[in-house]
Amino acid sequence: MSLLFKHFRIHQIFGANTDVGKTILTTALVRASASVKKTSTGPIEDADDEYEFSLCGSLRRRLNTVLYRFHVPVSPHLAAQIAAGGEADKIVPDDTFLNSISSYVRRNASRVSGPAHLYLETAGGVHSPTLSGVTQLESYRPLFLPTILIGDSRLGGISATISAYESLLLRGYIIDAILLFRDQYYRNSEFLTPYFAERGIEVTAVDAPPPKAVDAAENLASTERYYESVNLLPVVQNLDLRHQQRFAELDSMPRRSIDTLWWPFVQHGLVKSETDVTVIDSASSDFFSRPASSLESQLDGSASWWTQALGHAHPALTLAAARASGRYGHVMFPQATHAPALLLAERLLHDGPGKGWASRAFFSDDGSTAMEVALKMALRAFSVRAKLEGTERKALGVLGIKGSYHGDTIGAMDACAEEGVFTCEWHNAKGYWFDPPTVSIQEGRAINDYRMNPTNSMSWVYDLTGRLDSPLAQVYREYISHTLDGLERSGGPRLAALVLEPLVMGVAGMVFVDPLFQRILVDVETGAGLPVIYDEVFVGLYRLGMQTPDISVHAKILTGGLVPLAVTLAFYSTNKAEALLHGHSYTAHPLGLIEKEVRSEPWAAAKARWESDGTPSVMWSLWDPRFVKALSCLENVAEVMALGTVLSIKVRDDQAGYTSQSAQLLLQSIRSTDHDMESFASSGVPPFSVHFRTLGNVAYFMTSLNTAPETIRTVEDKIWKALGETKRTSE
Amino acid sequence: MSLLFKHFRIHQIFGANTDVGKTILTTALVRASASVKKTSTGPIEDADDEYEFSLCGSLRRRLNTVLYRFHVPVSPHLAAQIAAGGEADKIVPDDTFLNSISSYVRRNASRVSGPAHLYLETAGGVHSPTLSGVTQLESYRPLFLPTILIGDSRLGGISATISAYESLLLRGYIIDAILLFRDQYYRNSEFLTPYFAERGIEVTAVDAPPPKAVDAAENLASTERYYESVNLLPVVQNLDLRHQQRFAELDSMPRRSIDTLWWPFVQHGLVKSETDVTVIDSASSDFFSRPASSLESQLDGSASWWTQALGHAHPALTLAAARASGRYGHVMFPQATHAPALLLAERLLHDGPGKGWASRAFFSDDGSTAMEVALKMALRAFSVRAKLEGTERKALGVLGIKGSYHGDTIGAMDACAEEGVFTCEWHNAKGYWFDPPTVSIQEGRAINDYRMNPTNSMSWVYDLTGRLDSPLAQVYREYISHTLDGLERSGGPRLAALVLEPLVMGVAGMVFVDPLFQRILVDVETGAGLPVIYDEVFVGLYRLGMQTPDISVHAKILTGGLVPLAVTLAFYSTNKAEALLHGHSYTAHPLGLIEKEVRSEPWAAAKARWESDGTPSVMWSLWDPRFVKALSCLENVAEVMALGTVLSIKVRDDQAGYTSQSAQLLLQSIRSTDHDMESFASSGVPPFSVHFRTLGNVAYFMTSLNTAPETIRTVEDKIWKALGETKRTSE
Repeated sequence: MSLLFKHFRIHQIFGANTDVGKTILTTALVRASASVKKTSTGPIEDADDEYEFSLCGSLRRRLNTVLYRFHVPVSPHLAAQIAAGGEADKIVPDDTFLNSISSYVRRNASRVSGPAHLYLETAGGVHSPTLSGVTQLESYRPLFLPTILIGDSRLGGISATISAYESLLLRGYIIDAILLFRDQYYRNSEFLTPYFAERGIEVTAVDAPPPKAVDAAENLASTERYYESVNLLPVVQNLDLRHQQRFAELDSMPRRSIDTLWWPFVQHGLVKSETDVTVIDSASSDFFSRPASSLESQLDGSASWWTQALGHAHPALTLAAARASGRYGHVMFPQATHAPALLLAERLLHDGPGKGWASRAFFSDDGSTAMEVALKMALRAFSVRAKLEGTERKALGVLGIKGSYHGDTIGAMDACAEEGVFTCEWHNAKGYWFDPPTVSIQEGRAINDYRMNPTNSMSWVYDLTGRLDSPLAQVYREYISHTLDGLERSGGPRLAALVLEPLVMGVAGMVFVDPLFQRILVDVETGAGLPVIYDEVFVGLYRLGMQTPDISVHAKILTGGLVPLAVTLAFYSTNKAEALLHGHSYTAHPLGLIEKEVRSEPWAAAKARWESDGTPSVMWSLWDPRFVKALSCLENVAEVMALGTVLSIKVRDDQAGYTSQSAQLLLQSIRSTDHDMESFASSGVPPFSVHFRTLGNVAYFMTSLNTAPETIRTVEDKIWKALGETKRTSE
Repeated sequence: MSLLFKHFRIHQIFGANTDVGKTILTTALVRASASVKKTSTGPIEDADDEYEFSLCGSLRRRLNTVLYRFHVPVSPHLAAQIAAGGEADKIVPDDTFLNSISSYVRRNASRVSGPAHLYLETAGGVHSPTLSGVTQLESYRPLFLPTILIGDSRLGGISATISAYESLLLRGYIIDAILLFRDQYYRNSEFLTPYFAERGIEVTAVDAPPPKAVDAAENLASTERYYESVNLLPVVQNLDLRHQQRFAELDSMPRRSIDTLWWPFVQHGLVKSETDVTVIDSASSDFFSRPASSLESQLDGSASWWTQALGHAHPALTLAAARASGRYGHVMFPQATHAPALLLAERLLHDGPGKGWASRAFFSDDGSTAMEVALKMALRAFSVRAKLEGTERKALGVLGIKGSYHGDTIGAMDACAEEGVFTCEWHNAKGYWFDPPTVSIQEGRAINDYRMNPTNSMSWVYDLTGRLDSPLAQVYREYISHTLDGLERSGGPRLAALVLEPLVMGVAGMVFVDPLFQRILVDVETGAGLPVIYDEVFVGLYRLGMQTPDISVHAKILTGGLVPLAVTLAFYSTNKAEALLHGHSYTAHPLGLIEKEVRSEPWAAAKARWESDGTPSVMWSLWDPRFVKALSCLENVAEVMALGTVLSIKVRDDQAGYTSQSAQLLLQSIRSTDHDMESFASSGVPPFSVHFRTLGNVAYFMTSLNTAPETIRTVEDKIWKALGETKRTSE
């Protein structure tokens, strides 16, 4: 929703405090802009009822129906409360206001032919509350407008100006200029000018206006003289220059990136032109802001490779990280402790995924590394227990499921089968991997590979207790025991650990393994004395009816996606283990913890939607069950599956595989925005495109834990439109 | 230097702005404290000349010789400037002031027998400049005092209070309470109370004082009545409670950490008691603050495992990270780009370690992973060039040096020889590793293993151009070629890459390899067409006279130590390479870049010290050459080496090896502080202990790039004292 247009430079003006001269300095900016813009612009709309706009002028949130009832100003939230007589639904929500600014600006941006300027003056200080009680710099953040800060020239104003700057910086704002009055006595600008020069921002001090004259005509004349004496033309030119530089930077980034970056998992030969590169100018909640004709919103459809869980640039996470950084920086961890690491460990062990079984937490910095730690723990435990020596230890293997993926470091790769492109020179798959029986929704019904499913219901599929006595359970048991016997006879590697991704194998193409099969495998191997490792890096902190493991691995969601952090939880006592000679420098980086889990109304509603399907279920998703089922009936769709935040769509494609482009091509259209302003007006959802990743013939979509339901519905509509062009099969 | 004492609760009081009632509310706090503290305390010293102290009272920075010259207040920095008549050396430095507070507080903390309170009231707002022009919250940061924020009750005060809070939070301060006046009209406290309750801080609103009466006696009476009406007893009790909870937390952390954490590289059997655990309460510049009898400063003697380069909790790094977090959060990277990643890549390639040879940057999140990326690149490049197929590719090995360490993931381990404890079940060393000829300082002279050194000077050792024609170079060439021939004859693995840690092998025990040997090895293998990988994770961005590699790996210092980030720089063109199927989710986390390199006076002085040794040298260190040489003459010291920020001391020990405790035991005494207040008074360096890591019989010390020279001199004294108890050999 960011607003940035080549020929229409817009700045928002924040105050370091109230009463620092925002309106006067904004007016001076408008006059300076007007003086250079004589040749420019087509017609810009006049103000509407609620807000006052003017050509090259100041858009000020006047709140005229509310604020003007009072003789002296109060904070907008208080004005709104009083005006609404305490009735919350009479208060204008912030997003309505933002949409209104956004649509006004977009309409006019397409009208102006030459360069034009617009200044949006905010009310009070940077953190003054808006009508709905959020503070201003957070409320306006989705627009990500370049910013001018009006400093405070009074006693205490140095502090107020720097603190306001830091609050803006914590929200990522780009601050292009600082203006303030010149005060001969306090001389704040003398301190602030070099202070901000070091931080790349120019400070301009301007004489304060003369005292108000009693006579109205004289007042007008002296005001006019004052404005004539104030020359902000250099500031305006500097703002123009920065604006141009920003576009030059954005325009040059794709080429420069192609020339310098080696991207992960990208076939660089396929990056043929600059338009193949996604430039991310900023991000907010579930959206990237990326340059197209202007900046456009693009839904981060893979939740940035499954890392982000609470939206991009979440202020609470930024503040938690900043607080830890301000208190510790990075401090070393061996034989040391600090509150953030200890509290996180305790929470994970006593009230999280380790509850009831794990006794120790080992921190590292990514999922692949944490898996290597898990493997080292498990293999060592097995070796010690089985009293293995020398080469026997080196020859151990693991038991797993085909399609598993545990990371890209060699040890993590060695715990996976060698399949297709996922291999390299030193990869040496060590173990045996079962072909997995999977579950999915096909033609509206829950299906497992054996089609042994008495109710066709997903709730039933995930009701493991109920299914343990089913005929299919017996089939699985026999298959497992038969396979293991054969393996032993054929002299396969000695198996030392069972390694599973519970529920879903992400990289394999979002393969949902029948949880009953995994459950029985765990039961069998636990019985045989093998350590069991769950790789929950993808699946997060989400586990359904599975037995507890001996070791589990978590990452990504652990910091809400903000910084790399991983943890290996283990049952083992460290007294018995030797020193684990594995140590990344960043073990237990002291950063903010996981946001409290979302127990929100949208989650309750989503659960209810899936339950209406049948009996209360442990299996549900933020995606609509009717949409999921309808999708599974489309001709070009082989199968669909949804669980939690993930939606996976396998399209029909004879040449399936990781390098297949079929899903990519079929859904290509949702990558671009339809600038449908009418649908925007009616739905209230601003237009956006969708950024998504595919795995061969599988397209998957992943939301945050708190993505707005309207956004998910809109994505469903977009997918439906893209895939539904082929005839829908009868239900 | 943090101040925290069980029976002497100290809070600093910051204002959200000037003129918000700090002194009045501080006085009210003092009175409330006095009312509960009747039974307490021994004598606390009176004020000294410069500052005003009182029992249970307010310590206010009065600056009486400076500030009181003016009739109205100005910012302290301005007052100081005017008073000093522009002469900088007349301005009292902040650290003098901090040391004075610190020593006053410590003296009195040891005197009071019962509970006592002290409030330190700061001047102006949180960011008001101090005498020397740094802003207050940064100047006071080393004391890390628990904080009370006085909020602003006026129009705009909501914004001012929240911004001041955020500025404090960015420096890690613990804010225990917020107080402000109750204002019936603006009602700021009504907004701020739930806002900060969500953030765990209690807000207390207090009636504002009555207007000043004209009559002095009446004014005194009404003021007294006002203070009697203000009841801050609940606030004081809450502050006491938080104070106690903080100690309870600190006291419990060692036990809880032993019970939940699995530390990297720690033999848990040796962690016998709670005192073996280092609790880190906060960190600042080069120091941890850790609980002892009170909090004590402990020098972070290993630079937190070589990660931190510019001091802990460096505000510029915190702000850079916070800005990136506020603008992007974490955004995905494959086929995408954003300014922080692109600019860092360009800087590394065009104006950093990749200058002149590298063409691509691949981001990941730790050094071990980045080494695996490098190995995959090199092995693939070799395979493609040599047209290898199938099992031939799997059988490749690397050439290296014994003692190399490239990380703890299996692939990085496989590029190292299997030695001692550094191995595990799946480790399978692939390649051949030379015994390295090393260099060190022994008995005051620069020595290499072959003792072929015409000048005994370290400058000469690192003058590679000059040495390429030396007889020793010829010895090295013959040794290398003879070894490789033998290897080929004996059917060793096919070598596909040369992998080196330039200059120093950290984990091996700070082994300084003769750079001439590495240089010749690179020349030989480059000639033979082998890709050359430099692992510069430890050595940072520091390279002396070495040839450029084909691939280099960097981490740790890359973010100044703040967050995990690693990069692999490569010569290869991505057009020719296939997709590198290696991708950690956090590739190119958008975070702040490396601080500009330190080109400071202390570096110039350190270089000059090493140059005075002989001719101008590329080899120098922040450690004093005279100290280094003298150390190498001690009886219990086998050899010493210093380079850049590293000092390495090998002690004489017949049972050397990674598990040896000899270096640990010999230097044990520098782990504890000698609370020598007299030496503090004379040197101006507050007492501190030293936290350091050993590698068997090697103790090493690593400073930041900007550690204060006084600090390094003090550490040298401490080491000298600990080791010098044995008789010094004659020079």
